[in-house]
Amino acid sequence: VSKIRIGMIGCGVVGQGVLRLLHENAKSIEARLGGSIEVRRVVARDRGKSRGPHLRDAQLGFDPEALLTDPEIDVVVEVMGGLEPAGAFVQRALTAGKSVVTANKALIADRGHALMELAERRGADLYFEAAVAGGIPVIRVLREALVSDRIVAVRGIVNGTSNYILSQMQEQGLAFEVALKQAQQAGYAEADPTLDVGGGDAAHKLTILATMAFGARGELQSLTTEGIDTVDAADIEFARRYGYVIKPLAVARALPSGALDLRVHPALVTKDDPLAHINGALNAVHIEGAALGPCLLSGLGAGALPTAVSVVSDIVDVGRNLFAQASGRVAGSPFSTGRAPSIQPIADYRGRYYLRFSVRDQRGVLGKLATALGERDVSIEQMVQEGHGKDQPVSVVLLTHPAREGDLRAALAEIDKLSFVVEPARALRIEA
Amino acid sequence: VSKIRIGMIGCGVVGQGVLRLLHENAKSIEARLGGSIEVRRVVARDRGKSRGPHLRDAQLGFDPEALLTDPEIDVVVEVMGGLEPAGAFVQRALTAGKSVVTANKALIADRGHALMELAERRGADLYFEAAVAGGIPVIRVLREALVSDRIVAVRGIVNGTSNYILSQMQEQGLAFEVALKQAQQAGYAEADPTLDVGGGDAAHKLTILATMAFGARGELQSLTTEGIDTVDAADIEFARRYGYVIKPLAVARALPSGALDLRVHPALVTKDDPLAHINGALNAVHIEGAALGPCLLSGLGAGALPTAVSVVSDIVDVGRNLFAQASGRVAGSPFSTGRAPSIQPIADYRGRYYLRFSVRDQRGVLGKLATALGERDVSIEQMVQEGHGKDQPVSVVLLTHPAREGDLRAALAEIDKLSFVVEPARALRIEA
Repeated sequence: VSKIRIGMIGCGVVGQGVLRLLHENAKSIEARLGGSIEVRRVVARDRGKSRGPHLRDAQLGFDPEALLTDPEIDVVVEVMGGLEPAGAFVQRALTAGKSVVTANKALIADRGHALMELAERRGADLYFEAAVAGGIPVIRVLREALVSDRIVAVRGIVNGTSNYILSQMQEQGLAFEVALKQAQQAGYAEADPTLDVGGGDAAHKLTILATMAFGARGELQSLTTEGIDTVDAADIEFARRYGYVIKPLAVARALPSGALDLRVHPALVTKDDPLAHINGALNAVHIEGAALGPCLLSGLGAGALPTAVSVVSDIVDVGRNLFAQASGRVAGSPFSTGRAPSIQPIADYRGRYYLRFSVRDQRGVLGKLATALGERDVSIEQMVQEGHGKDQPVSVVLLTHPAREGDLRAALAEIDKLSFVVEPARALRIEA
Repeated sequence: VSKIRIGMIGCGVVGQGVLRLLHENAKSIEARLGGSIEVRRVVARDRGKSRGPHLRDAQLGFDPEALLTDPEIDVVVEVMGGLEPAGAFVQRALTAGKSVVTANKALIADRGHALMELAERRGADLYFEAAVAGGIPVIRVLREALVSDRIVAVRGIVNGTSNYILSQMQEQGLAFEVALKQAQQAGYAEADPTLDVGGGDAAHKLTILATMAFGARGELQSLTTEGIDTVDAADIEFARRYGYVIKPLAVARALPSGALDLRVHPALVTKDDPLAHINGALNAVHIEGAALGPCLLSGLGAGALPTAVSVVSDIVDVGRNLFAQASGRVAGSPFSTGRAPSIQPIADYRGRYYLRFSVRDQRGVLGKLATALGERDVSIEQMVQEGHGKDQPVSVVLLTHPAREGDLRAALAEIDKLSFVVEPARALRIEA
């Protein structure tokens, strides 16, 4: 074989980026792959739309059936996204023994294990570098470069929209709603931003990272997911005064018990944290290996071309395997032989917290807050009160020592019922 | 095959780290490799030294001959370092069709191309992730993850000793000699620090990076190499006032002409530069891809265990190829078919400069400096004079607009001859 023939399902911005890279870098890709890549079929959804200038000799169609049943296609590239029908297409391709490259985070998060096992049984490759953090090669690093080590923790900023909005709030003192509108105007946020700012997109990516790093069997339901839409400009300012910045984190940690601590939420990190400097729409993943120590990967987590870099590099990798008749050489499911770790209930999480209370300025308020927290074993490390006046509520902000989340939530529920409390308490985790 | 048998030449700190990881992580490595790794022979240099607790069943010897002629060894792991005899051992192993994993930066920098071509001819693998930046998987990223893209620039902090010393000078206002002594006491610098602080070690690594990113054929002679030993505490302080930090950089850039800009030297970078926050003994490599955009990898660039992570992951990769009978599936020499780019003479480099003059405080000095620079087309962007007095020399510090290095050096040579100049001018490049 000196040519691999691909069929691509989906021809939106990422798909067009794939066609562009395959065309523009054809010579160097061919030299390094030792053969050429032919785009044989492209299946798009809508007729009449522009597919960009790089479609060339590929046969454009609108029926995936023709692609999936074409025996001459070696690799199926799925860049349409969404669970269905993309999932059925990927499954059929793998079942037929064709290797698959996909950028579909929802699909891999939801059904990655089953698809990896299917690929392994069929001796096919399933590559999905583009599904997490766009152009940052974190899947390859976890699956290959760190195969020799035991991963202790993976912490990432994996949603560029959320990071952009929090960065704008931080730098310009904007309210969330204003920053969101700006992000939409700048093209960093979609008209319906729920999946991004609500944490759902990051939860998909964290599920995949936890699978690759720890053999987790992703169950999105058991993953604590909080969006950045609860962060107030006041929180950013208070955090700053204490020496912290608020970042949209996705965290997966191996606990001494063997269980996993999995969370997606905005968190306070110190200014010395390597993630504190990841601003704007940048993504980053910080890996801690038992032997490796800390390792940071950062770059553009979205965008047609960065994402296409990952897709096309996956195609080359799969192509190298085809040429060497070595498809399936890297076990898709890294821990298929091991038992999947359980996920720690969030109530058992222990950590430090930032708390903000909005209260009436009455005598004894601070004491009552401290007492309610102390009764639940939540002890206070620092406390500051802001504003005063009979009519206006004042803010009380405090940082706690490490506490159990279940205890903290119980204390906050009690505090919220106290007569001097004006608004429900805000709590943010401090990520050490 | 369900087992690969390795022979390791060298059993110092890295070699012992390799044995430790192979032992401690044996179960997960076996599950993910789909077979086991047996350390069959270990060849050490000195009798009677401790080899640590992880030697176990491996046969310890002192004659590489027995290892190299053992037909049962599949993979030779070279962690002894140095050009010879390590180079001859690697060459013999590859000639015999055995795959090789090495951590030897001097060897790959000097003879990487010839060895990669030899490996390719013999259908063997040559992996050397540990040769650059210890545990940071930059070779794999360049060779595999970014194979689809055209690399525009690679800039790195690849010598931890130099970065540690400059960081200490920066943070504590130390003189170079004091910071060096502290680094030696802390174990971050060797008794003879020449290769580290003089830039030679970084030059080796840059040569390898330029090979992987641009197909450069390393000629260390044509590479501009300046050490950090010329940086003065005063330079760090002046740079800080202008909003810069001084970092030990290794830079490889593709120029529009097709030539390469290759340099190792301390440079001023702005506080917003992603490399500005890489402090202490950390290493980092910043890659700019035409499609990818910016991508930063950082972590520990040295140390037994981080380096061993790279060596053992290479062993697993080579092992996956052996099991799949696919050795040589990734072309070792990424650009073997292309022409190697030429290296731009440093005189033709264009960039901004930081200049510091030590002069007697006479009337008209600033004008004469400006005139001498202006006559060579070096124009001044900012200027500051520090100190004054009849007896003490004063410092004049200025930042230039972009200028040609040959012109700048000619101007500085003339300035150094002027009567009011007390010491030769100091010049540092500003890396945009």
